[in-house]
Amino acid sequence: MSTRIEHDLIGNRDVPADAYWGVHTLRAIENFPITGQTISSYAELINALALIKQAAALANHDLGLLDQRRTDAIVGACEDIRAGRWHEQFVVDVIQGGAGTSTNMNANEVIANLALERLGHAKGEYQYLHPNEHVNLGQSTNDVYPTALRLATWTGVQRLVGAMATLRDAFAAKADEFKDVLKMGRTQLQDAVPMTLGQEFMTYAVMLGEDELRLGEASQLMLEINLGATAIGTGINAHPDYPARVREHLSALFGQQLITAPNLIEATQDCGAFVQLSGVLKRVAVKLSKTCNDLRLLSSGPRAGFGEINLPARQAGSSIMPGKVNPVIPEVVTQVAYEVIGNDMTVTMAAEAGQLQLNAFEPVIAYSLFRSVSHLANACGTLTEHCVKGITANREFLRAQVENSIGLVTALNPFIGYAAATEVAAEAHAHGGGVADIVLARGLMTRDQLDAVLNPESLTRPRLVTL
Amino acid sequence: MSTRIEHDLIGNRDVPADAYWGVHTLRAIENFPITGQTISSYAELINALALIKQAAALANHDLGLLDQRRTDAIVGACEDIRAGRWHEQFVVDVIQGGAGTSTNMNANEVIANLALERLGHAKGEYQYLHPNEHVNLGQSTNDVYPTALRLATWTGVQRLVGAMATLRDAFAAKADEFKDVLKMGRTQLQDAVPMTLGQEFMTYAVMLGEDELRLGEASQLMLEINLGATAIGTGINAHPDYPARVREHLSALFGQQLITAPNLIEATQDCGAFVQLSGVLKRVAVKLSKTCNDLRLLSSGPRAGFGEINLPARQAGSSIMPGKVNPVIPEVVTQVAYEVIGNDMTVTMAAEAGQLQLNAFEPVIAYSLFRSVSHLANACGTLTEHCVKGITANREFLRAQVENSIGLVTALNPFIGYAAATEVAAEAHAHGGGVADIVLARGLMTRDQLDAVLNPESLTRPRLVTL
Amino acid sequence: MSTRIEHDLIGNRDVPADAYWGVHTLRAIENFPITGQTISSYAELINALALIKQAAALANHDLGLLDQRRTDAIVGACEDIRAGRWHEQFVVDVIQGGAGTSTNMNANEVIANLALERLGHAKGEYQYLHPNEHVNLGQSTNDVYPTALRLATWTGVQRLVGAMATLRDAFAAKADEFKDVLKMGRTQLQDAVPMTLGQEFMTYAVMLGEDELRLGEASQLMLEINLGATAIGTGINAHPDYPARVREHLSALFGQQLITAPNLIEATQDCGAFVQLSGVLKRVAVKLSKTCNDLRLLSSGPRAGFGEINLPARQAGSSIMPGKVNPVIPEVVTQVAYEVIGNDMTVTMAAEAGQLQLNAFEPVIAYSLFRSVSHLANACGTLTEHCVKGITANREFLRAQVENSIGLVTALNPFIGYAAATEVAAEAHAHGGGVADIVLARGLMTRDQLDAVLNPESLTRPRLVTL
Amino acid sequence: MSTRIEHDLIGNRDVPADAYWGVHTLRAIENFPITGQTISSYAELINALALIKQAAALANHDLGLLDQRRTDAIVGACEDIRAGRWHEQFVVDVIQGGAGTSTNMNANEVIANLALERLGHAKGEYQYLHPNEHVNLGQSTNDVYPTALRLATWTGVQRLVGAMATLRDAFAAKADEFKDVLKMGRTQLQDAVPMTLGQEFMTYAVMLGEDELRLGEASQLMLEINLGATAIGTGINAHPDYPARVREHLSALFGQQLITAPNLIEATQDCGAFVQLSGVLKRVAVKLSKTCNDLRLLSSGPRAGFGEINLPARQAGSSIMPGKVNPVIPEVVTQVAYEVIGNDMTVTMAAEAGQLQLNAFEPVIAYSLFRSVSHLANACGTLTEHCVKGITANREFLRAQVENSIGLVTALNPFIGYAAATEVAAEAHAHGGGVADIVLARGLMTRDQLDAVLNPESLTRPRLVTL
Repeated sequence: MSTRIEHDLIGNRDVPADAYWGVHTLRAIENFPITGQTISSYAELINALALIKQAAALANHDLGLLDQRRTDAIVGACEDIRAGRWHEQFVVDVIQGGAGTSTNMNANEVIANLALERLGHAKGEYQYLHPNEHVNLGQSTNDVYPTALRLATWTGVQRLVGAMATLRDAFAAKADEFKDVLKMGRTQLQDAVPMTLGQEFMTYAVMLGEDELRLGEASQLMLEINLGATAIGTGINAHPDYPARVREHLSALFGQQLITAPNLIEATQDCGAFVQLSGVLKRVAVKLSKTCNDLRLLSSGPRAGFGEINLPARQAGSSIMPGKVNPVIPEVVTQVAYEVIGNDMTVTMAAEAGQLQLNAFEPVIAYSLFRSVSHLANACGTLTEHCVKGITANREFLRAQVENSIGLVTALNPFIGYAAATEVAAEAHAHGGGVADIVLARGLMTRDQLDAVLNPESLTRPRLVTL
Repeated sequence: MSTRIEHDLIGNRDVPADAYWGVHTLRAIENFPITGQTISSYAELINALALIKQAAALANHDLGLLDQRRTDAIVGACEDIRAGRWHEQFVVDVIQGGAGTSTNMNANEVIANLALERLGHAKGEYQYLHPNEHVNLGQSTNDVYPTALRLATWTGVQRLVGAMATLRDAFAAKADEFKDVLKMGRTQLQDAVPMTLGQEFMTYAVMLGEDELRLGEASQLMLEINLGATAIGTGINAHPDYPARVREHLSALFGQQLITAPNLIEATQDCGAFVQLSGVLKRVAVKLSKTCNDLRLLSSGPRAGFGEINLPARQAGSSIMPGKVNPVIPEVVTQVAYEVIGNDMTVTMAAEAGQLQLNAFEPVIAYSLFRSVSHLANACGTLTEHCVKGITANREFLRAQVENSIGLVTALNPFIGYAAATEVAAEAHAHGGGVADIVLARGLMTRDQLDAVLNPESLTRPRLVTL
Repeated sequence: MSTRIEHDLIGNRDVPADAYWGVHTLRAIENFPITGQTISSYAELINALALIKQAAALANHDLGLLDQRRTDAIVGACEDIRAGRWHEQFVVDVIQGGAGTSTNMNANEVIANLALERLGHAKGEYQYLHPNEHVNLGQSTNDVYPTALRLATWTGVQRLVGAMATLRDAFAAKADEFKDVLKMGRTQLQDAVPMTLGQEFMTYAVMLGEDELRLGEASQLMLEINLGATAIGTGINAHPDYPARVREHLSALFGQQLITAPNLIEATQDCGAFVQLSGVLKRVAVKLSKTCNDLRLLSSGPRAGFGEINLPARQAGSSIMPGKVNPVIPEVVTQVAYEVIGNDMTVTMAAEAGQLQLNAFEPVIAYSLFRSVSHLANACGTLTEHCVKGITANREFLRAQVENSIGLVTALNPFIGYAAATEVAAEAHAHGGGVADIVLARGLMTRDQLDAVLNPESLTRPRLVTL
Repeated sequence: MSTRIEHDLIGNRDVPADAYWGVHTLRAIENFPITGQTISSYAELINALALIKQAAALANHDLGLLDQRRTDAIVGACEDIRAGRWHEQFVVDVIQGGAGTSTNMNANEVIANLALERLGHAKGEYQYLHPNEHVNLGQSTNDVYPTALRLATWTGVQRLVGAMATLRDAFAAKADEFKDVLKMGRTQLQDAVPMTLGQEFMTYAVMLGEDELRLGEASQLMLEINLGATAIGTGINAHPDYPARVREHLSALFGQQLITAPNLIEATQDCGAFVQLSGVLKRVAVKLSKTCNDLRLLSSGPRAGFGEINLPARQAGSSIMPGKVNPVIPEVVTQVAYEVIGNDMTVTMAAEAGQLQLNAFEPVIAYSLFRSVSHLANACGTLTEHCVKGITANREFLRAQVENSIGLVTALNPFIGYAAATEVAAEAHAHGGGVADIVLARGLMTRDQLDAVLNPESLTRPRLVTL
């Protein structure tokens, strides 16, 4: 294999001649053989790094610190990357020591070599354009890396919110379709009082809507960046006007107004926003899992379960039981939820372990957040398309259950009193039979009165029934 | 022991004659012998229950559903409880099955019996005023209990935010006191570049300020209530005007404008707001723990550690090592943080396990949240008073470390370049000696130039040094 | 209030004259106002401390380091405490900084003052018998405290294992009672193939049996102690023969053969055994919760649920719904399980945060483990007595479900093939009707053949049916 | 693209002609687009599946249920797969619904089509050899899948234990190298009493040794399998002699004696062994992280930290700070530890969510366990090779710290008493100066006495010094 020689603090190393990455990346490859998964799998992170490097070059050019030729070359390289090229050159492991330095240096090296070729030089001729002195000018890993995580996360979360909105629409459409389907509501898995299946499905839509709002709020925290902080937030080696300039360029390129953190020292060491966002993702996971557990319960059966609804058959459910169909889509969503909750624990521990002016564990925070966001979005997608849209209801069965229920007695409370109602319920429970029949037999109410109280319209919403 | 007989669904039971609680509470005592801690230990919960029962009585009276005498008696009983009396009558275990029914019935029974005595009746003469038919009128555990948790939590969180603000002030005062104390900043526990101790302490104040904002936002979610939902959110047996009336009375009594959830069915089953709040409490815990770990690091020593600051001596540190003083206050705060993070996991699992129209596991959510809030508030208090306020700095030692540091070389980057700077650092590391001396010896800069670049003012903030 | 003056590293303080604790305890009370719960609530910890102090006094006496009078006085004081007296003198908070020093000093002070009174001196006259120099002789918090935690935990775990065994017996008795009750088994909440209710209940017994074994193994790790380690495990200030002597006395007093850790330095800093035990407690919690969720599912209804079994009615289930009975006992057990899982997270974080020669966070480990153990034991007790023993089965309903099930078709696989069986299942699902009827109508098997294959005996265990 | 038609419960589908997988796999691909990572990335799982299918074919052949030609063809296909071929045909997502059915069917289909080609048939001609009726004969996903997970996990854990043993050796070698390096021990980050650096490093070796033992015990649980359980553990459709036969074949092929679970119904639904193993992996993670945090602390500096040891420089530490070298290897190990702890939470939730006769969430348990095991093994490897082996000590600096320490005073306790020692410590702390000098100045001991007490030999182990 053809190689070139590169040099760093530790000494000389042979780097593959056709690699755009250099010696720092090479050492990271050797140091972190952990997951086998490279950061190239996070396209949004790679794009965010290119955005930042481009904005920094433009800001440095504005400030007279970077000449036009080098600026153009760096900008061109970054735009290539943002167009989706060269991502395979981002080869460091997703879990890495060094607080993201290897990711930042991987970007610096790839961009420098791409830019060198644009300037007519060979890869590795850093005397013309240097990964640290030009591509990383005015920057440190400690401001570039968290900023890149924030932009990448923001982008991912928008995608997730979109997937949730589509799922919400699907639930709302079902709520409308089922708005007249009367059924028994349940608390603590015990028959409670009547409601409609539409009301039940509407709750899933409402929950998603709330979660979208909460995610939107939390993702706003991602738009606060610390570029200009350099090493520890004191801004050492950065031009005083650099933070504002780079923010303006980056806002324009990213298409969202970014904010420079008011205290850059705090911003550089703080992972609070990641913990907060992860906590909200956990909330989303909890709700999605609860919803999917409900879908599995309601569709349990077909004959020895709740049997209220039918999920679309998506695949044969068993290698041994013919005809068995399982709720495989809710099951996969719930598993993603459990992964997200585990990821939140990882984020929490990594954030807690930060020391003094930096948190060295941001790479595992990124690894966890990126998976949570993308897996949740994918889970919402399959849940919408392969499950919710195809759900049907067993209408007659549901209505019969209401008519046969003991829970109807609750509606009679205001008319016959809690004590008499308890006795009616006890008799129904002990001897079978319907609540209405027992009430009539006991002469507690007339048939007309019962009909007025027990009509579906008044059972499923607040009403003022006077007899 | 003198007793009276009470009756429920299951049968008759002897209740101690002097107990204000009744048969439902008695059964709960027997069913849930778990922690030995009763809900009376949560004064804010007891008060919230009394507030709700009072507001409900007033609303029912407005709607013509409860007569004046009974209303007055219930209101009087509730005001007694809110004044701090009779809390010892709230005797059910903090961890209980039944989704809070036992807590609600404990309240209904105590209030009913207090009200009965006000009306000149004996305890247990429920034919005159009934725990379910009058005290619980228009209500269900499923709207009363989560509303009580929300009010109690909101109150607790305000106390916590106050304790955090006091702690923030203490850090800010120290930041001001230490604003001229030059020291080495560190990333990844390795010497980085200079900063001031004031800047370092200011980050702790800023972090707390952010967390207070986030807690404030999350606690707003507690002000959305579901009174009027009754059993499952359909409002069965509640007057259509009841939700608005009870909200108005409760807002007035509580002193905060409350909101009725727009979808009561969703609100009755949803624990999302508790998960969100718990996640933010976890964030607070993570930051407090990080701060306390920093304090322990910076005060490590006295002779074989960082030795930068001194925490006030609070107690002898060892039963065997004379003169040893330990950072006991930061240590206890960190332990509270770990408890809060564990509590968040409990809240998460309990929320995820909700099924259909209700979450049966809210009592353990309450148990976890209440401890998190109160222990965090107490931890902030002791941290403020017994630690932060008394911290002192070892100023001369800190300045000497900066002057002796290799990290100073970073500031020379823009003047001698990254490559030359790396060589200077390597020499300092290998052979000892100061960066400035080596730079002078190598003829890279003049003494005047070095003085201009290395003055503390320019080292600790962005600056434009031209030579 | 009458007081006496005591002195420590920091200065003089007034201590209540009637307090057996002294100045170190006083300072701890002031420093750690966190939970309001004192260590006196952990009787097993107090007893373990007394055991250790007694064994240490006896060992020191053997080695000629403690005279007979002081030895007798200390031993007498310890025996008083072990008999249950003076526990209220253990007043430091369960969450405390200082790695347990306050707990150890609380014990040293109480024992010293009790011993002083036995010797005819007044409390506080430490010149005659000193908390550090005599009661704590040859010891350090860093060996006494973890040893006390281990003994207390071991004792608690034996209690838990006993409660689990009783619960296991109750499940096994039900398994026997239900051994002929045929029912549908379910996978993924979908009807699968037949089994007996006895087989189902037997799994709960078997699970508990396995967990008891695993708990037993993990609790053995608690019997390895580090007495003799003193400050950091090097044994500074301890007599070379002390570790063996104190272990022998302690083993005799405790009634279990204890082991001295082979490497005391490692043992003094290590919390691995606590993490392991907590992990096994989490396993127990997971299984108990799964079991209770099953009980809630199987008893769901009474009319719109699975309706397979009936849990004993323990209390009225609702403040608004007459006649409703909820599965309150399984619900409380599941909540305890969630608490235990949260506690495990706290233990994990505290253990991970240990630094160098000590883990400063053992008090919160103790706080978490003690609650997990005692709440689990209490939960098993109420589950046994108030739930499992009273469960009944709806036998006819269950048998009818089997006969009506589509899942029976699986048993026909070997005779008609997977493809034909799938078509039979599809027809049953689409048009209703029984599997046997469809098979007969299609002429796939004869009635005799069907009877041979579908008899309950052969359906619920491996069999060799040849037609 | 050329295709063939395959058929299942739902209907016909085009499958790529060159795919060895079939219609069940195709539907799974469509249903579970979650992570983009396929099960082919778990080579040990694929091999375990092939082992099981081979053993099942042999057992069925023994029992006269599978003819020689088909048996040979299936065995040949499985051996091909175990030799590492065709893994790329295992294309279902690592996170999937259906309790592993898609993984099992993917295996059944690939093996069937490989076997068909061996028999001279085309892919898809299942009339000659069927994925369900022949490859899956006597099996169900519910026994095949957990058995495959167990074998794969067992194999992975042995690799991890090997990596830990190598790391342990590296620590032990350093312990020997540093056995004479005197240093200050620390508790709670405060200077305590002297020890040797060798003693400190030995604790890391001892900890690893204990964890290897615990992992070994937990991995034994993986050798208990449930083959023969079929759908729910009742063994429906399996020959009564099948469990023993398949276990014997599988034990022989796997090279370890396997055990058939005594209660197959319990074994089929139970995930306790996975929870237990995950808990022990968490324990390993906690200890590794603690060890790495120690290494980072001890190597903090170079000038403003503890400065006790030097980790080998592995890469430039900063994109902006020349000469900075960071502890990147311990940092990556700690991040893996946090991932493992998060994974344990995922495993816990998935295990707890099992219902009735099956746990539907085993795929996410596998996903979590496989990553925990392999990442931990990789982390141990890089820690050994790239960090521990190259650690050096700053011997003179360490000895000077001991001689200058206040902690030496503890050793004087037995000679001058705790009270006098406390005063000496206080003076040293307030005015600087060495403990020995103060003791001499105060006339508390003679120089000879001091020398006898303070010699390193007696300071770092239990001794009997008499003066």
